[in-house]
Amino acid sequence: MPNLYVVLTHYPVVNKSGNIIISAVTNLDLHDISRAAKTYGVKSFYVATPLKDQKVLVKRIVRHWIDGAGAGYNPARRLALETIKVIDSIADVVEDIRQIENTDPKIVVTSAHRYPSSIGYDKFRALLQTGLPYLLVFGTAWGLAESLIGEADYVLEPVCGAADYNHLSVRTAAGIIMDRLLGI
Amino acid sequence: MPNLYVVLTHYPVVNKSGNIIISAVTNLDLHDISRAAKTYGVKSFYVATPLKDQKVLVKRIVRHWIDGAGAGYNPARRLALETIKVIDSIADVVEDIRQIENTDPKIVVTSAHRYPSSIGYDKFRALLQTGLPYLLVFGTAWGLAESLIGEADYVLEPVCGAADYNHLSVRTAAGIIMDRLLGI
Repeated sequence: MPNLYVVLTHYPVVNKSGNIIISAVTNLDLHDISRAAKTYGVKSFYVATPLKDQKVLVKRIVRHWIDGAGAGYNPARRLALETIKVIDSIADVVEDIRQIENTDPKIVVTSAHRYPSSIGYDKFRALLQTGLPYLLVFGTAWGLAESLIGEADYVLEPVCGAADYNHLSVRTAAGIIMDRLLGI
Repeated sequence: MPNLYVVLTHYPVVNKSGNIIISAVTNLDLHDISRAAKTYGVKSFYVATPLKDQKVLVKRIVRHWIDGAGAGYNPARRLALETIKVIDSIADVVEDIRQIENTDPKIVVTSAHRYPSSIGYDKFRALLQTGLPYLLVFGTAWGLAESLIGEADYVLEPVCGAADYNHLSVRTAAGIIMDRLLGI
């Protein structure tokens, strides 16, 4: 199994004007990305937000599907939502993975833009073959803040189709990227 | 550009007990799948439902992003939602494509299950190279009714990851399948 962790972060991300914001959690991000994470054997799906009320909200949604009425209604959904860990920040994700793996993960950020240092999917697939832990970072709103992109070990190249349009939802992009990295 | 059309249908689909139902439209299905359709150069994204109030709802959502306040707020979203055609049934989708292409499309249905007649992604990619029109069918709720699957020209094999779990959302599955067929 791959040694891949995924985080969806709500800070620091940018709004449509390019200003750094904390975005609100979207319920279907939790469902769709956890279902993809479970499908592709991702170790944990972290949901990062510094806002206490948003963390409470995410935990409440997750509990509904793990221990609440949702668990009996849809056991497959329980298995997906169980991969979610709610956490403050990407620094705390790294710390959590360090506790599990006894080493820091390499950080790979995603972006709809191409950078001179962007790596391709074949390269990242090969890196995952080493068995070393990697943390793949997805941003909400209009994407990750440049400061976060600048600090990463790698930037993954954007998902492109035949057309000159790349405005996928983060839910769809996360699914496609996991499929490109871990699909069979 | 590929000669591919996509339909998301709300009838005939099954519920968790396997009974045939008409499902309700989910707003984010419209956004996520239209954004993927635009990314991958799909010709039209049909949303099929026989329910009049549901058609009114979809048209209202689409209009908000094409002509309403959403169009100015997010022009990229307008380009995606413009690919949507609201329609009664898959029979009507076929008729619409016949008017455009002067021939019937071949129908390819999706399913989370494997059938003896399922075809793989390489095979479908090769079929698309012919330039002939194809209609790719996605179901909501617990998936397409068996009657519909039985009448199709082809069944596409399910999306699989490394793990023994295949409960992706239709939004995520649609994105991954378009990427496998049309991604570069």
